[in-house]
Amino acid sequence: MTKRGKSLAENVADDILAMITIDKKFAVGDKLPNENELSLALKVSRTTLREAIRILVTHNVLEIRRGKGTFVKNNNNLSEDVGLKELSTSEMDIKDLYEMRLIFEPESAYYAAKRATDKELDRILYYGKLEEELIMKNQDRTEVEQSFHNSIARATHNEFMNQLMPILYSAIDKGVHFSSSNLEMVQDTLTDHRLIMNFLCKRDAEGAKTAMRLHIIHAMRGFGIKE
Amino acid sequence: MTKRGKSLAENVADDILAMITIDKKFAVGDKLPNENELSLALKVSRTTLREAIRILVTHNVLEIRRGKGTFVKNNNNLSEDVGLKELSTSEMDIKDLYEMRLIFEPESAYYAAKRATDKELDRILYYGKLEEELIMKNQDRTEVEQSFHNSIARATHNEFMNQLMPILYSAIDKGVHFSSSNLEMVQDTLTDHRLIMNFLCKRDAEGAKTAMRLHIIHAMRGFGIKE
Repeated sequence: MTKRGKSLAENVADDILAMITIDKKFAVGDKLPNENELSLALKVSRTTLREAIRILVTHNVLEIRRGKGTFVKNNNNLSEDVGLKELSTSEMDIKDLYEMRLIFEPESAYYAAKRATDKELDRILYYGKLEEELIMKNQDRTEVEQSFHNSIARATHNEFMNQLMPILYSAIDKGVHFSSSNLEMVQDTLTDHRLIMNFLCKRDAEGAKTAMRLHIIHAMRGFGIKE
Repeated sequence: MTKRGKSLAENVADDILAMITIDKKFAVGDKLPNENELSLALKVSRTTLREAIRILVTHNVLEIRRGKGTFVKNNNNLSEDVGLKELSTSEMDIKDLYEMRLIFEPESAYYAAKRATDKELDRILYYGKLEEELIMKNQDRTEVEQSFHNSIARATHNEFMNQLMPILYSAIDKGVHFSSSNLEMVQDTLTDHRLIMNFLCKRDAEGAKTAMRLHIIHAMRGFGIKE
């Protein structure tokens, strides 16, 4: 089995990357074994190996030093800093991000229903109602939509969720604007948000979780995202 | 309702932070309204407001310029960079991180069972078996434990999950070492990992998800983490 829609060289590039990031066979600055050894170890032709290395050079993971060999580059994505790490969203597609929302946001609604302070609940309702108004006026609601979901993540009182949510949105933001052109999606959003807000007000954690799941599934279907 | 175990000033500090990060009422470099206005707006005493500002100064969110007022500081946690963001793990406690694992890792096992290539499955099994050997030899297994879970996240073929997992572990790493001193936890880990590996080999997504959930719950109970 190979990864969906990936070429053999891309799969080999993934394997080499995993040897660096997971297996720790090669560290930053290390020289890779020569072509003969490495193509034998990976059980691929030297042509495929060369193509895989080219891909990793393009992605800033490896660098070729002329006459010296191929080296693991000092790359932010590979850094081992304790405490702070960077999440590079450049290789993610919209499907990855919505799959992550589907995992993460229903749980976020669940904990928010259990833990939100009254002030935090007020903030969520404020943004929910503001978004309804913008939809009625046919105005862009991208920013308010994000504030609605960010304020829910904040109300979980889980600092990891609180910080993760804006990162997810900043990645999604590049590709998606919440337009008012798709009438069905707009109607779903109105209904879903009201459901979410009602369950949150009743402190019904399972209800809020399910309504949020429905909301994300509606969005995925609207964008044509399938498993 | 106020946040569990937080003082009034800490709650007010949270509110001011939300005015910056969610409501966008104040941007980096902005001067806050004077004490009178702000304490009226937040419905707290000036003493409490001053204490809240002191907390935010300590956390590098605000700075007081003598004779000029209080300003929103240029802070990495507040940055709006598109594409790359930093996750600051300094304010997270072990409960936040395990709650996140409980949300995230069962789904990671689910997608890995569905999507892992044969090579990726081999890598997962390799680390699972290596960890069993280390446990038998009574040696530290922290790094191999992480490789086991990272290789599962990688096999989801979801780039966001793949990058998130090491961030979670790097945060957990600061506080937790997987010792072999707690015999019950060691036995649970052996059993749970075997369950996870068996379900993955059978490509049983629901089974893998449930076994992973059991594994995280075992760890949470072992560390005394409750909801």
